[in-house]
Amino acid sequence: MPNSAQTAAVLAQVDAGLEQSLARLFDLLRIKSISTDPAYAQECQRAADWIAAELNALGFEASARPTPGHPVVVAHGPDQAGPHVLFYAHYDVQPVDPLQLWHTDPFDPQLKDDDKGRKIIVARGASDDKGQMLTFIEACRAWKAATGSLPLKVSLVLEGEEESGGKNLPPFLREHAEELKADIALVCDTDMWDRQTPSINTMLRGLVADEIEITAANKDLHSGMFGNAARNPNQVLAEIIASLRAPDGSVTLAGFYDDVAEISPELKAQWAGLGFDDKQFLGDVGLSVPAGEQGRSVLEMLWARPTCEINGMSGGYTGDGFKTVIPAKASAKISFRLVSGQDPAKIRAAFRAHVEARLPSDCTVSFTPHGGSPAITVPADGPFLAKALEALSSEWNKPAVITGAGGSIPVVGDFKSILGLDTLLIGFAQVDDQIHSPNEKYDLESYHRGIRSWVRVLAALAG
Amino acid sequence: MPNSAQTAAVLAQVDAGLEQSLARLFDLLRIKSISTDPAYAQECQRAADWIAAELNALGFEASARPTPGHPVVVAHGPDQAGPHVLFYAHYDVQPVDPLQLWHTDPFDPQLKDDDKGRKIIVARGASDDKGQMLTFIEACRAWKAATGSLPLKVSLVLEGEEESGGKNLPPFLREHAEELKADIALVCDTDMWDRQTPSINTMLRGLVADEIEITAANKDLHSGMFGNAARNPNQVLAEIIASLRAPDGSVTLAGFYDDVAEISPELKAQWAGLGFDDKQFLGDVGLSVPAGEQGRSVLEMLWARPTCEINGMSGGYTGDGFKTVIPAKASAKISFRLVSGQDPAKIRAAFRAHVEARLPSDCTVSFTPHGGSPAITVPADGPFLAKALEALSSEWNKPAVITGAGGSIPVVGDFKSILGLDTLLIGFAQVDDQIHSPNEKYDLESYHRGIRSWVRVLAALAG
Repeated sequence: MPNSAQTAAVLAQVDAGLEQSLARLFDLLRIKSISTDPAYAQECQRAADWIAAELNALGFEASARPTPGHPVVVAHGPDQAGPHVLFYAHYDVQPVDPLQLWHTDPFDPQLKDDDKGRKIIVARGASDDKGQMLTFIEACRAWKAATGSLPLKVSLVLEGEEESGGKNLPPFLREHAEELKADIALVCDTDMWDRQTPSINTMLRGLVADEIEITAANKDLHSGMFGNAARNPNQVLAEIIASLRAPDGSVTLAGFYDDVAEISPELKAQWAGLGFDDKQFLGDVGLSVPAGEQGRSVLEMLWARPTCEINGMSGGYTGDGFKTVIPAKASAKISFRLVSGQDPAKIRAAFRAHVEARLPSDCTVSFTPHGGSPAITVPADGPFLAKALEALSSEWNKPAVITGAGGSIPVVGDFKSILGLDTLLIGFAQVDDQIHSPNEKYDLESYHRGIRSWVRVLAALAG
Repeated sequence: MPNSAQTAAVLAQVDAGLEQSLARLFDLLRIKSISTDPAYAQECQRAADWIAAELNALGFEASARPTPGHPVVVAHGPDQAGPHVLFYAHYDVQPVDPLQLWHTDPFDPQLKDDDKGRKIIVARGASDDKGQMLTFIEACRAWKAATGSLPLKVSLVLEGEEESGGKNLPPFLREHAEELKADIALVCDTDMWDRQTPSINTMLRGLVADEIEITAANKDLHSGMFGNAARNPNQVLAEIIASLRAPDGSVTLAGFYDDVAEISPELKAQWAGLGFDDKQFLGDVGLSVPAGEQGRSVLEMLWARPTCEINGMSGGYTGDGFKTVIPAKASAKISFRLVSGQDPAKIRAAFRAHVEARLPSDCTVSFTPHGGSPAITVPADGPFLAKALEALSSEWNKPAVITGAGGSIPVVGDFKSILGLDTLLIGFAQVDDQIHSPNEKYDLESYHRGIRSWVRVLAALAG
């Protein structure tokens, strides 16, 4: 376990080496590793090779491993006493269109001042996820430079297809499960709570997605000739959808809340203290009335309560003008966000039973599943969470907070189900980083103090 | 008023001239008067000129009048004592694709035997509406040939854009309203009740069509980040649509049935006697349960009761696969079929009030009207209906029946609102004529006895 003088030396090394750290990030940002466009396959390979070479130079055994898609970089540091951490980030980036909205070339990184005078790094991938990835690698570099070694055993698995579906990672993890065994996973691909407040995300909602298609007549009918007598599947579908929510905003599926636990009073109090402004959150997107269960805060609705959403709905004529058709079919794409304790298979079965119970006898329904995964929760009493929170609090001079997320991050579920690993989601992005959009940026402070944060987190986890 | 010997002579003339009548129909069927395709504009002009020439040869003052689209043929017979009738039909036809499904060239008419040994005329327009149009013109020809004159004053207005929207007819009628004044309109563009039973359609439902678009957030949202807290317009729309029908199948708009009268016990009894098979009607399109108001027959639902139909509905992601979006907007195309007494403006206002009353406070709705027209009813006690029914009954040796129709025929509304004319809808098409489809046909019997029917109807109306 490193002592505090060692950690201080490493932090000083980070500060002294910042200019070189930035130059290395710029080198990586210049590589056009757009994973979704086959035209950039060679650039993805280049990025993977670049990272493997950097890690090898730091004393890792690193290589860019082939997959049916883009390579996965795997690296292992020397054996060490103490826990073994597995770090994940991704080196691929989103496409850059619409290119004309960029103020500078997305692959010619720039250090600029924003309109508040903050230094920002502008480039595709500056935040998502090359900048975040290098916060960790540069922290390892500083440890090596200042002390000659890392404070614990570190492995890395760096993906090249996070922005294009990530289908090749789970089989890769299964194939290399023995090699990738560790004690805890660290993922750097998330936001801070705000510019002052570091956070660790410990709750990710799960998802059950289903598509339903209701068939009434055996062909489209003319509403003049058949209207009133013939069943209209649009009406049937609308009635089924309407029945999924009660007037109080709760979801009506049988047993939907049976396995849902209330969050602890401590966590509830911490969330209440976050200063989250329900009105502003909704107001920013043009809304004002929370739509979920009455009596719950917006954060609770988003992080700790399950939901049912109609993601798509269509039936009949939807083009310009008007057609007096009674369609044969109507369909909807419906998803449920799940929280800890809910079983995706049970929720899917309850949904299908709910639909079938409301179907007129001369209609049929078909279901197409679109994936399902349980919610992920990092145990609050695990051995690493408290240490990581404390390390972040020291760096930012403000207590780090535990947050949830309404969406899922698939790799976290894969680490749990394939490698048996809990994950600490620690990231330094800001909500205004414009990821996936033109003029993506990463605050220089996110980069600098992100590196410093990892120096402290590694020291804390080693202890 | 013609005596029965005169009428008998005219009918004999029809029988003797049938071969020539058929040859003239074939000449007209060879003209490719597809109104919707600009490539056939000259063919539409040719058809109009052909008809005008035929009518001039019969002693009418006829001409093909230009419009912003295809010509309208207007013809006036000599002045006569008695009522003045205005006959309507259309000379344009539907496109012929898919051409490969035709067994013979759609514009090379054939007289064939069908699989039951019935003679049929096969060509595009054989039934809809060239064959039906010529039943009337050939009846006039027979009157002229057998007696030297028509039994009453006849005018004709023959449209060339019925299959392509018919937008130019209402302004044409308004411009020539004085010239086209008459006592009753006759339209030949409908079916017989069945092969044995002639019918006159006296009830056409009206229509109010409206499009609604509900806006919740000011942009599409990610259902992981916002789901549960953000209002989902798909859910809002589904709840509004579901609220439009009560569990008993009735429409829930305030005042929707206030102006709806029950049909007379006589008409109800006549409809009950038609032998209409609710189960077979629905079974033919794969359904079994009438969807409208419980306790009403299917014919009543279709002809005498108003309805609300969701003709189109869409919101969010509707392509392949799945996107976890909460859309900003959702929309629907909704129409109401009206019956006699209902005011389209009042129904539209009630619908919009119904929607607005159910809208969450942070959503907005916009409405786009897509036309509205009242239902049309020919008065059962008018001076012409009974005479026409009796004439048809004589020709077919079976009592002619009064029917309704679930849809609207716009020209009937235009004749009423612009010319102040009631219309008798008398047609000889059969339900299996394949209009608008490949291998359209018209029974030779429909053509022959259709001509004979008009001979008798003209005699009866003159009396």
